[in-house]
Amino acid sequence: MSAPRFFEILSSFKSMVDDYIFAFLPGDHSVPEIDLLYDMMRDYPSRPGKGLRPGLLMIFNRAFGGNDEMSLNTAAALELFQNWIVIHDDIEDQSDLRRGLPALHIKYGVALALNAGDALAGKMWELISKNNTILGPRKAIMIFDEFLRMYAQTTEGQHIELAWERNHSWNITPEDYFNMCRRKTAWYTCISPSWIGGLIAGADPELKDLFVKFGLDLGVAFQIQDDVLNLVGDKEKYGKEIGGDILEGKRTLALIDLLNKCRPREAEFIVASMNQSRQSKDPGIINDVLNLMEKYGTIQNAILVSQKLARQAGDTFTGSIGPSIEGEYRSVILDFIDFVVNREF
Amino acid sequence: MSAPRFFEILSSFKSMVDDYIFAFLPGDHSVPEIDLLYDMMRDYPSRPGKGLRPGLLMIFNRAFGGNDEMSLNTAAALELFQNWIVIHDDIEDQSDLRRGLPALHIKYGVALALNAGDALAGKMWELISKNNTILGPRKAIMIFDEFLRMYAQTTEGQHIELAWERNHSWNITPEDYFNMCRRKTAWYTCISPSWIGGLIAGADPELKDLFVKFGLDLGVAFQIQDDVLNLVGDKEKYGKEIGGDILEGKRTLALIDLLNKCRPREAEFIVASMNQSRQSKDPGIINDVLNLMEKYGTIQNAILVSQKLARQAGDTFTGSIGPSIEGEYRSVILDFIDFVVNREF
Repeated sequence: MSAPRFFEILSSFKSMVDDYIFAFLPGDHSVPEIDLLYDMMRDYPSRPGKGLRPGLLMIFNRAFGGNDEMSLNTAAALELFQNWIVIHDDIEDQSDLRRGLPALHIKYGVALALNAGDALAGKMWELISKNNTILGPRKAIMIFDEFLRMYAQTTEGQHIELAWERNHSWNITPEDYFNMCRRKTAWYTCISPSWIGGLIAGADPELKDLFVKFGLDLGVAFQIQDDVLNLVGDKEKYGKEIGGDILEGKRTLALIDLLNKCRPREAEFIVASMNQSRQSKDPGIINDVLNLMEKYGTIQNAILVSQKLARQAGDTFTGSIGPSIEGEYRSVILDFIDFVVNREF
Repeated sequence: MSAPRFFEILSSFKSMVDDYIFAFLPGDHSVPEIDLLYDMMRDYPSRPGKGLRPGLLMIFNRAFGGNDEMSLNTAAALELFQNWIVIHDDIEDQSDLRRGLPALHIKYGVALALNAGDALAGKMWELISKNNTILGPRKAIMIFDEFLRMYAQTTEGQHIELAWERNHSWNITPEDYFNMCRRKTAWYTCISPSWIGGLIAGADPELKDLFVKFGLDLGVAFQIQDDVLNLVGDKEKYGKEIGGDILEGKRTLALIDLLNKCRPREAEFIVASMNQSRQSKDPGIINDVLNLMEKYGTIQNAILVSQKLARQAGDTFTGSIGPSIEGEYRSVILDFIDFVVNREF
């Protein structure tokens, strides 16, 4: 049982990244309004989080023989990416809570929160540009390009999901869902953290396609598990309202699968409920939909799909990536894969 | 009378920048939702505009002996900066119109528009990173740093203005206003375009402080003239609703000056009206405020301040920057300074 080892490493990297970020982000300013902006930029980064993405980057950097001084600024940039993007996400999804506390736009209004997200994105690029001195221009350019790729994929995936909602699209196949998740989640959660980590340490660029394959599978598995936890998780551990995705009308695998398997009248009922605004939705819909998911086994199916994808990612890793890396990190990464689909938070 | 020469150059640079941007931005995509995102990213750039900022960059690059192939990608990046930032701006200010057409969030909703702004910002950084091959890593890093500086200043200035509105702050001095404008407008409208243009061509880094002084004065002059046009401009030429800033409760020099000069009861009336939401404001307030501005001469004063700042910028240019540059561009830049404070659009 080596699971604790993974969490130990993750938590030590998280401390390093947090320290780095809070030393880097601006603190006080004599103009009171700018001082408030700086407070807002530090708000999400100061809330509790797993530090999964920067941790993964630093683990892969170590696995390929790199040291933490080489990867810390890029890991911190990735953490800032996650933070500014969820500031904007929360506005886009009209989410009230983030990590158990009021979302930034609830605290300060949409205008200030949107702009603070932009300001934080600028600090992300500033961290990335430090690679010119830390790693030299050649590697700095490669990593910058990877960030651009991740950035474009993430905004495209986010757009697909938002467009489905705006257009009341429900004629969605599981393949459409996978395609959306690959962009929205897999790049910034799995592919880029692992591959950029390797790249910093000098991993062979020929390995990239394998990392993409590994990360696409694992990233989709991660998102499915996230959606499953929203349906059947433990609120205390998960930190969000259970069933919130149903109220938001979020297209999840269990819901798409349900619409493809249930009777026409049931589908009509679900779509009609889902198309109501969150405010006008009867919270009783959560139980109605959960019961239908139970009836057609679609949550169970989503779990199976997630586990299958994680197994595929594990096979790619063990068969093709693992042999290139230092032994002690192989088991850490396998623990990570295991965590993705078995986590409760 | 050399004014036409400035507009000729500006318009030829604008065509080059537009062509470059539309060849660069992604066109079609087989996933219909992503295809829509690409349409949205091309929306604002395809609307009529002056192309002032990229034009200024390319003029200064030529003035310091550079050629257009060296500056075009950075000029295009600056144009994208302007475009994505106003997508977000329009959401923040709840503006309905942009360049005479419905704002992006009015056409597609806040969520999709916000995300499209983010996606366009990514394309800006992609253009900037081309400098690694076009200009080599050393200059590329310098220009990247200038973009980061501009980016940070702009978001800070935007934050100050939004915070005033949110906090119903009216105890604002002209100096507070200048400080806000320097950040919000002067950097991305004057300082960065002119200095980055020079930098690309190899201008002496020692000149930077002079460019900052030049651009701070001219940028504030530009913003004051913009605010003046909103109050007394010709709607046909200006392209926006006259008096819209009064309905938005925007802190302009003419209004701040008025609050500092009028009687307490008049100030109370103005502040009470300004603090109403745009929706609940009586449009008659526009004429009431304009009459008070007339009574206390605050529009006229704003025009004088703007002209004085432009004169200062002209002195800095003529005395300290102009001697370093090629003669034919000196008059073009003087025309530009003249345009900033005498334009009607």
